[in-house]
Amino acid sequence: MSIQEESLAMHAAHRGKLEIASRVPLETVADLSLAYTPGVAEACKVIAKDPSRVWDLTMRGRSVAIVTDGSAVLGLGNIGVEAGLPVMEGKAVIYKKFADVDAWPILIDSQDASVIVETVKHIAPTFGAIHLEDIAAPRCFEVEERLMRELDIPVLHDDQHATAVVVLAGLLNALRVAGKSIEDVRIVISGAGAAGLANAHLLLDADAMHIRVLDTKGVIVPGRPEGMNPYKEAVAKRVFEKDGSDWGANLQGVLRGADVFLGVSQPGLLQAKDIATMAPKAIVFALSNPTPEIMPEEALAGGAMVVATGRSDFPNQVNNALVYPGIFLGALEGRRKSFSPEAKIAAAKAVANMISHPTRDEILPSVFAPGLSRIVADAVKAV
Amino acid sequence: MSIQEESLAMHAAHRGKLEIASRVPLETVADLSLAYTPGVAEACKVIAKDPSRVWDLTMRGRSVAIVTDGSAVLGLGNIGVEAGLPVMEGKAVIYKKFADVDAWPILIDSQDASVIVETVKHIAPTFGAIHLEDIAAPRCFEVEERLMRELDIPVLHDDQHATAVVVLAGLLNALRVAGKSIEDVRIVISGAGAAGLANAHLLLDADAMHIRVLDTKGVIVPGRPEGMNPYKEAVAKRVFEKDGSDWGANLQGVLRGADVFLGVSQPGLLQAKDIATMAPKAIVFALSNPTPEIMPEEALAGGAMVVATGRSDFPNQVNNALVYPGIFLGALEGRRKSFSPEAKIAAAKAVANMISHPTRDEILPSVFAPGLSRIVADAVKAV
Repeated sequence: MSIQEESLAMHAAHRGKLEIASRVPLETVADLSLAYTPGVAEACKVIAKDPSRVWDLTMRGRSVAIVTDGSAVLGLGNIGVEAGLPVMEGKAVIYKKFADVDAWPILIDSQDASVIVETVKHIAPTFGAIHLEDIAAPRCFEVEERLMRELDIPVLHDDQHATAVVVLAGLLNALRVAGKSIEDVRIVISGAGAAGLANAHLLLDADAMHIRVLDTKGVIVPGRPEGMNPYKEAVAKRVFEKDGSDWGANLQGVLRGADVFLGVSQPGLLQAKDIATMAPKAIVFALSNPTPEIMPEEALAGGAMVVATGRSDFPNQVNNALVYPGIFLGALEGRRKSFSPEAKIAAAKAVANMISHPTRDEILPSVFAPGLSRIVADAVKAV
Repeated sequence: MSIQEESLAMHAAHRGKLEIASRVPLETVADLSLAYTPGVAEACKVIAKDPSRVWDLTMRGRSVAIVTDGSAVLGLGNIGVEAGLPVMEGKAVIYKKFADVDAWPILIDSQDASVIVETVKHIAPTFGAIHLEDIAAPRCFEVEERLMRELDIPVLHDDQHATAVVVLAGLLNALRVAGKSIEDVRIVISGAGAAGLANAHLLLDADAMHIRVLDTKGVIVPGRPEGMNPYKEAVAKRVFEKDGSDWGANLQGVLRGADVFLGVSQPGLLQAKDIATMAPKAIVFALSNPTPEIMPEEALAGGAMVVATGRSDFPNQVNNALVYPGIFLGALEGRRKSFSPEAKIAAAKAVANMISHPTRDEILPSVFAPGLSRIVADAVKAV
């Protein structure tokens, strides 16, 4: 049986993966009078008098809404919100396993940014944080920005920022392996969607100076007449302010002499001969999933020193599950109202530091690394 | 330590009562590839192709949203939506314990009917049914009606219908104890809010012929100039169509010679001498909580044959938890799109039949009665 068949059978056998559980006993009438009426009225009254007590008397301080509109699920695209539910359940069980965070999927039956924002705002009181998931660009930027502005709990689009944090963690260790520094390297990002733009922002925040971001029309440049949006403009502006030199206009052009290729775009974009034009000790993150921009063996054949993918069957898996449980745990425990760039960089450094001696085959810890989420959470809280 | 203090300490110790759990193992990389990528993509694709598969491949078919706006929490009133969360968590752990249904609180930060309706509509795809809770009348009627019309999953306001089902169950057995039949008895309902009106409708559906419903202004009569609303009008119309005779206009008047008093109104409304004016073998359901319309010992002193309250420290507790887990379980298992009056009556009869020989001190089963939710669910599915 293939993994796909086995997974489908498992989903059918358990009718999904997520369920609820009680933290208190319910075996006797006395138990019921504590968990429910008449005893429960006391917790209600205390919160009514002092709403801040909701954080220690209820589930709110442990709870995250995993919100999606189903528009960019895995590499499958806009498959509809119900078809995204197995992914959201998976995200939730990972939260519980790795960070003891209680997350619940919220599928929204609209792909209109205003509807998503209004709906999430109105259900926010149950939750301590909002995890946006698999929402297509550029809608995801607007939804996240507006919710961050309008809610006083942290909001984070996993596909943008958790990916960016793991990439930064992996890149920091890959640079150690290659003996290069983030301020000096030339970084080419292929893909100007949710992940590509968030990666560019976080790398710039983490002192990268030389970046080019490309979409299907080539390098994104401030004021480019075609295929831009305000979010691409903002990244292009930051990137060209740091390094305004001419790298060329297309992928092959900018790749020549580059130190880092970061692909969050499409399968089979590159060949070994493209990698061969990069600087010595090139670093290749080919994160298109399940089929990378270039397969690891080809990238290595082209001379890459370190190769990472999104897949679990090759070394160096860039997996959001390395960071999102810990980041949200830290934000919940620290009662954060938002995630700052500094918190994301701290989380990335904490993940990177889990590997004391990085090698070309080990730049990132396993999601099963003991204490991972605790370490990430503490790093977020320390900022 | 009082129950209230003990309950508060328990809520603080556990930070609420509800958490999530995984139905699948997550111990190895292989487990992760089944619960999450790459395996999970298969369930997504299958649902994208055939959306009906969401019911057997995900949590949806087991999931209920417990939705409140915090406007009528317990007997505490409009205490705000966050202060209602301990009650919603209690409802959810009862669901899990008694029916293995996975329910999640959804607190809505608005008391505008349209906002509540739109918000619930937009998050409905995660859930197999919508349980409305503690929403004040008359808003609860509009919210429920509109959601029933606009969603293709069952919607039920617990405070109205679960109460009505338990009352009907208890009344059927109380009538057996008194040797009277539902078609013959005169029933006085004090309270024309959520529970009072729903009780009137369900009793009429169950063949009661002689009912009067009162609010603070007296008997509700079609076209009464003051304090009416469309929901009271509808009940008044049904009631007077069945029995148009003159019972009097106030509580003391209509109570004279009545067989059943059903109070869902306010503490201390009646005295023993009022009960003494009722027909012999009177039945008194004094459900104002925690302080009943009349205390059981007073009602008995006035000559009542059977007395029920909402409290666990007297015999015959009318407790919604007797029916809501089973009713929703049946609706979920039977993929019902709504709850019909017939389903509610079937549920009430199933609960009543749990007691083979009702006595004045035992007209309703305990919530811990083995198989209760299963029996209620099967009754709902058999309709």
